[in-house]
This record gives sequence, C-alpha cells and structure tokens, in this order.
Amino acid sequence: MEKLTDAIEKLPLVDHHVHGALAGAVDRATFEVMITESSVPAPAGTTHFDSQVGFSIRRWCAPLLDLAPHCSPEEYLARRDELGNDEVNRRLLAATGVDRYLIETGYQGDATLGLQQMATAGRRPVHEVVRLEAVAEEVARSGADAAGFAATVRERLADSATTAVGFKSIVAYRHGFDVDPSRPADVEVARAADRWLREVGTTGTARVADPVLLRFLLWQAVDLGRPLQLHVGYGDADLDLHRSNPLLLTEWLRQVQGRLDVLLLHCYPFHREAGYLAQVFPHVYFDVGLALNYVGARSTAVVAESLELAPFAKQLYSSDAWGPAELHYLGALNWRRAMTRILGQWVDDGEWSLDDAVRVATMIGSTNARRVYGLPES
Amino acid sequence: MEKLTDAIEKLPLVDHHVHGALAGAVDRATFEVMITESSVPAPAGTTHFDSQVGFSIRRWCAPLLDLAPHCSPEEYLARRDELGNDEVNRRLLAATGVDRYLIETGYQGDATLGLQQMATAGRRPVHEVVRLEAVAEEVARSGADAAGFAATVRERLADSATTAVGFKSIVAYRHGFDVDPSRPADVEVARAADRWLREVGTTGTARVADPVLLRFLLWQAVDLGRPLQLHVGYGDADLDLHRSNPLLLTEWLRQVQGRLDVLLLHCYPFHREAGYLAQVFPHVYFDVGLALNYVGARSTAVVAESLELAPFAKQLYSSDAWGPAELHYLGALNWRRAMTRILGQWVDDGEWSLDDAVRVATMIGSTNARRVYGLPES
Amino acid sequence: MEKLTDAIEKLPLVDHHVHGALAGAVDRATFEVMITESSVPAPAGTTHFDSQVGFSIRRWCAPLLDLAPHCSPEEYLARRDELGNDEVNRRLLAATGVDRYLIETGYQGDATLGLQQMATAGRRPVHEVVRLEAVAEEVARSGADAAGFAATVRERLADSATTAVGFKSIVAYRHGFDVDPSRPADVEVARAADRWLREVGTTGTARVADPVLLRFLLWQAVDLGRPLQLHVGYGDADLDLHRSNPLLLTEWLRQVQGRLDVLLLHCYPFHREAGYLAQVFPHVYFDVGLALNYVGARSTAVVAESLELAPFAKQLYSSDAWGPAELHYLGALNWRRAMTRILGQWVDDGEWSLDDAVRVATMIGSTNARRVYGLPES
Repeated sequence: MEKLTDAIEKLPLVDHHVHGALAGAVDRATFEVMITESSVPAPAGTTHFDSQVGFSIRRWCAPLLDLAPHCSPEEYLARRDELGNDEVNRRLLAATGVDRYLIETGYQGDATLGLQQMATAGRRPVHEVVRLEAVAEEVARSGADAAGFAATVRERLADSATTAVGFKSIVAYRHGFDVDPSRPADVEVARAADRWLREVGTTGTARVADPVLLRFLLWQAVDLGRPLQLHVGYGDADLDLHRSNPLLLTEWLRQVQGRLDVLLLHCYPFHREAGYLAQVFPHVYFDVGLALNYVGARSTAVVAESLELAPFAKQLYSSDAWGPAELHYLGALNWRRAMTRILGQWVDDGEWSLDDAVRVATMIGSTNARRVYGLPES
Repeated sequence: MEKLTDAIEKLPLVDHHVHGALAGAVDRATFEVMITESSVPAPAGTTHFDSQVGFSIRRWCAPLLDLAPHCSPEEYLARRDELGNDEVNRRLLAATGVDRYLIETGYQGDATLGLQQMATAGRRPVHEVVRLEAVAEEVARSGADAAGFAATVRERLADSATTAVGFKSIVAYRHGFDVDPSRPADVEVARAADRWLREVGTTGTARVADPVLLRFLLWQAVDLGRPLQLHVGYGDADLDLHRSNPLLLTEWLRQVQGRLDVLLLHCYPFHREAGYLAQVFPHVYFDVGLALNYVGARSTAVVAESLELAPFAKQLYSSDAWGPAELHYLGALNWRRAMTRILGQWVDDGEWSLDDAVRVATMIGSTNARRVYGLPES
Repeated sequence: MEKLTDAIEKLPLVDHHVHGALAGAVDRATFEVMITESSVPAPAGTTHFDSQVGFSIRRWCAPLLDLAPHCSPEEYLARRDELGNDEVNRRLLAATGVDRYLIETGYQGDATLGLQQMATAGRRPVHEVVRLEAVAEEVARSGADAAGFAATVRERLADSATTAVGFKSIVAYRHGFDVDPSRPADVEVARAADRWLREVGTTGTARVADPVLLRFLLWQAVDLGRPLQLHVGYGDADLDLHRSNPLLLTEWLRQVQGRLDVLLLHCYPFHREAGYLAQVFPHVYFDVGLALNYVGARSTAVVAESLELAPFAKQLYSSDAWGPAELHYLGALNWRRAMTRILGQWVDDGEWSLDDAVRVATMIGSTNARRVYGLPES
C-alpha cells in the first residue's frame, strides 16, 4: 500500500483540460460564486462554503496557507488576502504535482492568467486548447461577411492547429447533443452565417448558438483531425443537463470514427455512459474532471464508477479548474486520493496486482494524455 | 464517533413531506400492498415482505413491538394485531424522533389519520401542505362552471396559503415534467376547464390531467410564492418514471427563479440530477424521502450520492410515509443511520471536522426546513 | 460469514441467459475483440486486456490454467493454446458451478458450441431460449411470401414454444424501446412484411429492423405467454444506449401485464430503473448479467445497486457469456463474490439475518429462475 500511495502521490500529472488561475485578488462574494457552478449568491443565511468543495478548501488548502485544517471561511479568506493572490497561486499550483497543463483559453480570459503567465506561476510547460466557438465569435466580431465566413473560420482553425494541441467544443451548452449529426452543406452554413452575422451587427454581441454553425465547427475539427474535447454533463445553469448526455452523440461518433480522437470532459452524472462509449468506440476518451472538485469527499465513489466499462487506456485526468488555484490543487488531490483508495482496496483484496495498479494510475494520470495529444516527454 | 452518533440520534427532525398513519387495522393482503409501490399482490409463491422494506420492518420495527429482530412476517403481523393499530402508531411514531410533521393531505385521506389525529398520535405539532390538484378537483366536484373555475381555484389556494406551510404538485404523475414551462393564457385555461368540467359532469370522476390546467396550478403556486413541493422520480406504476426526471423542469425553474422555493421530493433514481439543480438554482431544494424506506440497507449509498453536488443548505429530510407507521419510523431510522455512517467515515478519514458533521446533519434534518417553510422554533 | 461464503460458493446456479462457449481455438486479435463489446482492435499501443475483464482473466482464470495470478496476457494466451480450447472449456465450465444453462441460440452460432455440445462440455442440462428476430429472419430467408409471412412466423414460434423455455427479443438493438407499444394491425404487418421481403430478395440479407415487424414479434410472444427476455442497456456499438432505457417500455409493460413474464437482461447502467419496474409490475424480472463480466472488481457496487427497490423474488442470475469460457466462469465468480460481500456486510451490521441472506442468494441464483421458467428440479 505504501508503495502505491507513494507512486500516485508523486505521479507527474497531465491536467488535460484546465483554465488559468486567478489573475488578482477577489472579494468574498466573488470568491463564493467561483467555488460553485451557480452564478448567484447562496440564499440569505447560507453560504456556498457549506458544500463539499467549501469543506475541501477549509480542510486541504488551509494547511498550505499555514492555517489549521477546518478553519472558518473567514479565517481562510483573511489569510488568502494577507498572503496575496500571487503567493496563493504559487503555493497551490506547486502542490498540484501537475507536470503539464493543457489550457483552454476560450472562457473569460481577463479574470485569469494567460498561457505564459500560467507557465510562470505553475513553473511547468503549458499547451493550448482552442475553443471552436470562440474562434467563430472572433471572426464574427472582426466584421467578416457571410460569403467569407466559413473560409475564414477554416483558415483560423487550421492556423491554430499548428500550435494548439487540440480543440474544444461547447455545443452541449449552446444547443445540446441532440443536434443533427451530419455535416451541414456549404449553402446551409452560408445561410446560417448570414443570419447570425446580421444579428451580431445589430446586437453587437457575438454568441454562436445556431445549430448549423455549431455543426460546421464540429466538422471542421473532424477535418483537422486533432483531438477534440467536448463539454459533457455537469456545468452551470445555462445548460440543459439532460441534453448533454453523451449518448445523444452516438450517431455522430459513428460518423467520425477513424477521423479524430474525441475527449468527453467531466461527464457527471453521465460518467458511466461515457465509460460505455469509451469501451465501444476506439476514438472515444473521457475524464471526470470538474465533478471531483465539487463532490469532494465523494470523489472516491465517482472515480470508482468511472473505472467500470471503460478501458484503462481511454481515461484521462483533468481538473477543469478555472479561477481560484484552490480548484487546480483540489482536482489533483481528490483524484490522487480516490485512485489510491480504490486501487489500494483492489490490491488488498487480491483482485489487482500492485504493479497493475501503479501502471493504470500512471496511464490515466499521464501516459494516455501524452499519447493522445502527442505531447513531448517531460 | 460517539458524539456524532449521539447527536444524530437525538436530532429532532422536521419530516417535511409525510402523510397520515393508518387509521385502523388492516389485513395481511392490504398491509403487503402498503409496503410497496406496486398496487397488486406479489406473484404467486412470493411476498412483498421479501424486499428491503420488508426486511427492515422485521429487523427494526419488530423490537418496538416486543419481538425478536428478524421474526417472521406472520409473527410480526400477529403481534401487530394483538397490540392494535393505535398502540402500534403510538410506539412507532414516538420512536421516530420527529419534532414536526408537514402533512400532505391530498391522497386517500380516509384510510389514514387526519391532521389533528396525527398531532395527537405523534404528540408533536403538525403543519399542512396542500395538494394543488386536490383543490382543483374539489372545485370541479363542487359544480363550478368554466367561467368561474380559475377564479375559484385561485381564491381557494389563496385561502389555503394563510394556513398551510406550502403546496404540492403531482404534475409528474398526471403528465410528466415534459410539460410546456410557460404560464398558460387565461383563455386557454378557460377552454381547458370547460372541456374538463364537462368530462367531470359526464363521468362523475374528477381527476385533473389536462396539461394546461396542471400548468395553471403550478403558476398559481408561483404567484402565491409559498414553498412548492414537487413529486419527482420513484412512485407507483401510474407514473412514467423517465418523464419525472427533474432535469426536464430546467426551463420552468429558470422562469420562476426568485418567485418561490421549489422542493423536489424523493428524486430516486434522479437524486444526482436533483443535487445538480439544487447547486445551480438558488430556489431549488430536494430530499431522498420515500426511497430510503424502500432501499433499506442501501440507504447509506443513496444518502451518500445525495451529498455530492448539492449544497448542504439545500437538502431536507422527509419520510413520505403513508399508512403503516412502520414507514414513518423507518424513514427516520434509515436517514439517521445513513448520515451517521457517511459523516462518521468522513470524520474518521480526517476529511470533515466533527463540528461540521454535526452541523450539516442538523441543517438537513431540521434547520433548512425550518428556514424554508418559516416554521416556528420548537 | 463462513457459512454464508460457503453457501453462496456451493449454490448451483441457473444461468438464465447465456450463449455457447468457443467451438475452437482463436488467435490473439480474435480473442481480444471477444473480451470487449467493441468490435475493433484497441487503438495502437493499447490492448483490450487493459480493462476490468482483462484483469479478471489474468487474476481468476489463470490459476485454473495452472498459471500464477496476474500473469501477462502473453503467458495466458500461450498456456490457453497449449491446453487447447476443449480443455479450457472443460476446466472453466466445470468451475462455474452452474447447474442449468438457458442458452440463447440466435447469435453467431458457428463460432460457438451448440446446445448439445454445451451440455456435453459443461456436463449439465441445457434449455433453449429462442430469439424472435432469428425466427423471422429464417422465415424470410426460406422464401416466404408476404401473404403467408405472419402465419408462418406464428406457427414456427408456437412450435418453438413446445421445446424452448422462453423467447428473447433484441428490439432494443434493432429499433429501441421508443417503439409504438400497441399491437400492430394485421394489414400493417402484411404491408411491412411485403416491403421487407422484397428487400431481402434484393439484398440477399435478412435483418429485421422494421418497427412494425419487431412489434409483431413482441406481441406473438405475448400471445404465447412464455417468459420473454429483452436485451436492455449495455451492448455493442450497434446500439443506441439511451433508446434501450427500460423505462421507455413502461406503457408496453402496462398493456401486457397478466399475459406473460418479462425478463430484462443486463440493464447496466439502467439497473436501478429496472429495479423500479420489477417492484411496481408483477410480471417484470431483471438481472445484471453481461455487466458483471465487464466491470470486474466493481461487481460488488453494481450488484448492490440492483438490490435496492427490486423485490428479491424478481431478480435472476445470468452471465450472458458468449465465446470464451472465461466469460461463463467470471460471470458466476463475480456474482458470487459480490453477493457474499454485500450480504455478508449486512449480516455483520445486524441489518439482515444470516438465514435471510442465504435464502435471498438462493432465490436470485436459482429458485426464481426455476419458478419463472418452470424448470424441473435438478
């Protein structure tokens, strides 16, 4: 057991889907909405700290800020301010044991550290993952016309593919996986672009939600053949969770088999469904990131459920942290503790060998991501 | 651990959704269908006692009737008859440790004790929860005409709101949550009422299942702003379980945010989905009542799954017992044992502090309900 | 505990849904795709052995082939070849402790042992389960015309019913449970048969997927009144998993109540949904076969989830093994270990009596199947 604990504790992780840490100090109200997928304050008389992630912060992050475990939220936030956000980032990112961050840069970039800043703060190499919808919206804001829209987006994505290690789609947020799986015809795309660009012109806001354009983006990623991350399941109240069930993608997955690798992100509470897809489709991978932060002490149960149908070569680690570096740290901590307990139990029960347990933890925490994204050895 | 066990054992619960205990003795066949959500006898050669709830009755209720744990169903029922239903009610209700019952009076009232009788039998204060559909059906039976239907229902509900602590809807049973989320126009309501009242006139039976009328009732509750309980998930064979997935309510929940608190009842097997809604929407609460009675020894697993995404201020306790006081008792017993085991393990593992564990159990078992329903301190 | 372990270990199982063991030796590539529901090789640099079932084979089957637990896949397959497929069948089938096999003969019969060969290899009596769709396809291939199609199929099924113990439908694969639940009219069936038989004539391939014909077959089984097995949930990539949720059958189950017993097979990840149906409908039964093989060390969790709402008289054991006798053996082994751990824990905790635990294991492993299928006592 000690050998397993030690191996998993020291395993240099690839966090294959993550965002930047906080760029500066925030007040308590702001911090509270950053540790929940709710976008509003907790009801009067309650606090978002009374949650698994809140308890994890007080238990596991407090000692790294020189506080006693289980200190109060007030004590925690006061000490956080005292140390300053940079020092908190430094301490918590150092404690993650992450060797590589694959950073998705498409969401609210200003509040968080950029690619180079994350490399500096975390003292580890970073790679970029480009959000398809963000590229389309950038093109729309730059005043593209409908005739040239598709070609410009295609070109920008092709450019990105030379530096980014993969793409990401949030079609689950913008429409749901109950989208037509087929590639849209050029004329449909042009028509949808025309409609949308007029709307952008009128409203001044570029938020792509047209299903034809969302499908166009997905199929561009297919053509480029780079790994494609898909938001699946748990997220904020913008989402229709039942329409983000990955099983709704089954027909699309059939159509793109052999063209690219698809990485299902988060997946809770559909992680068993994701495990099924990862078994039957050679190009499907998944993780249980994001959820682990928010289920805290229940991480062991969620990780265990992810280790059922899915082949061990088809699972990855991510934190999906965004903002407070507490989330970058807890993602790794919860995963390591969960894996240690689950695999440790199986070794104790004589079900698995110790060597296999170490090997599987290494695959999921690092090797699989290195292989799928073609990362250099560290 | 002893401190935690003791604190949870002695915690005066608010059972925020429950029905009356049996009003009189019943024979074995009747008792059997009261300890299952099936409405028919078990297949030949089998018995509804061969189930988790049947085993729980023999294990945990038997000693309260002076029998050995695990006695046979025959011994149990013979002793139950010998003591008489009143004495059984008295013993089992006393053992619940419930401080307040919030009693929903809309279902088969004759077989069970009414509000005042429950207060007497249970020796604790009771509060009423009014079923929206029952009020509409009462109005229909009273010979209302279509022109006055909406106004009469509105008035009756407003009257109820002065004494009841909340409302309940069984739209999940009568249609499913795949109902149009928007408020129906007055003219639609009048038309639907006309149709339905003619039908009531013809058949002599008033059972509201028209989706327009069901939506009208929901929106009346929104206008009144009192806590609204919704049957979610597990129930009897009248239900299309997949249409009672609370995620289907997402758009309606968005529309009513800020207008009232919504309490999702039972939720099994969608309790993780309910936990998600309780995190992202400030006005959503839930419990895993009913299910605990019927999963018995598996209560620990189900309660643990409910303690994942959901903030601790957003969960409540209920038994949803109806009929045999065994169900009133086992609901509380299963919840207490589950919470003790789960939180006790987390304290042992150093994940949670003991103080937090006691505090969270108190919130879920009592404080949250007192706050949401505005109950007086006991 | 020893008494329980011993009782479950020696329990003569009825494997109520299984296929033949491998008829001859296969190479590694073939063996690999037989231990997954994927139909293609694992991605380059990975192996299907890196999965729960792969680990179970190396752990539990290896010793029966005189190898050390956790030996490498290479060692395992080399020894398998050395012993020869017949000897491997003999050893692994002997170790299952299965008393009766109910063999479904509709899938890829050539690669696997037939009924009599399985009786010989397994040294135990076998019974046949007839796949509805296979009978329809046989009739189509035999050159039936549309006018006589329905009558011929009806006759063949009635003939089968005199020797087979039950029927099986794969409507979940061929369409999904979101099929019209009502019995199709004769004229619809004739029209659909005409369409399909022309297609069979043209393509030379008989694969029934027309929803009218699939419904016709289901209702034939209803008329014959024999136990009907339905594939539910987990299977290969041909399936739309979300359309195999057994809750989609609710209305059909209401319509056929009292006409026949329906046995939901596998059910993962919908086993809780299946448990609900088994509680509320007197004619519904289920198992968690197939899944147990593929979740390996997680069998305890999956079996535990199946022991929630479902009455103990409504659950059965199956392996759903097809091909490698490793799957016949591991199905039984995983179920026995899971039941021993779960029930043993409940006995230890004082929740269940030891006698009840032995009795429930016996019901699920044997008695329920004997009663439902009317099997002779062994």
